Amino acid sequence: MKDCLFCKIVNGTAPCYKIYEDKDTLAFLDISGDVYGHTLVVPKGHCTNILDAEPKTLQLVMATAQKIAKHFVEKCGATGVNIVVNNNSDAEQKIMHLHVHVLPRVKDANFSSIYADLPCTNFDFEHMQAKFGLK
Amino acid sequence: MKDCLFCKIVNGTAPCYKIYEDKDTLAFLDISGDVYGHTLVVPKGHCTNILDAEPKTLQLVMATAQKIAKHFVEKCGATGVNIVVNNNSDAEQKIMHLHVHVLPRVKDANFSSIYADLPCTNFDFEHMQAKFGLK
Repeated sequence: MKDCLFCKIVNGTAPCYKIYEDKDTLAFLDISGDVYGHTLVVPKGHCTNILDAEPKTLQLVMATAQKIAKHFVEKCGATGVNIVVNNNSDAEQKIMHLHVHVLPRVKDANFSSIYADLPCTNFDFEHMQAKFGLK
Repeated sequence: MKDCLFCKIVNGTAPCYKIYEDKDTLAFLDISGDVYGHTLVVPKGHCTNILDAEPKTLQLVMATAQKIAKHFVEKCGATGVNIVVNNNSDAEQKIMHLHVHVLPRVKDANFSSIYADLPCTNFDFEHMQAKFGLK
């Protein structure tokens, strides 16, 4: 899609540090520099996120993310992996082309968690179940 | 698997607030109370995480996660969704049965990010590419 950074990376008009590529997906380093080895997996065809992705597209990017996660642990010294997909700006999605974050992890004295310290609350779980349950 | 909490939830010997169920997967509320509507999707058959999951198992749990994410946005008032899969204890996995976190999000004055403020670093990206790239 015109003006989509990840489409430009896919079609070669923007550069990237490529980690893996196949017919349907591309994986490259995230340049935020936040976690060592932080990689993004994208479908070559444009969609916004999992809310509009074809099930087959999600299946293909997740299969690539799994392949990369196993490679990081089996071959690159990672001892754990986080997989993250943010969908829509209110969920902290920055580039509006579906991407799966693959974050290799090791025990690291510099940070213990990629997650914020969330304010825990005594929610009414029965009410939440009624609200969020699929009929 | 004996002594696995999520296997007990699947086979009904431990309780849960169920959100969705089909032949292969089950979704229920996370009781941590950290994010309103925080839901976990698990495969009914035991595996540890995506590092040992059959590709078909990952496909099924992600298809359910996608279904739930769309339901949260289309029917429950969420305006974004985070999908998270933590693999191994060094990546903050607490229960060693594959589970996909589905976190409905809205603009929320109580917290702006589920992610920690990570120390950004000027990594050597060419070195990282050589280390993490799949041949």
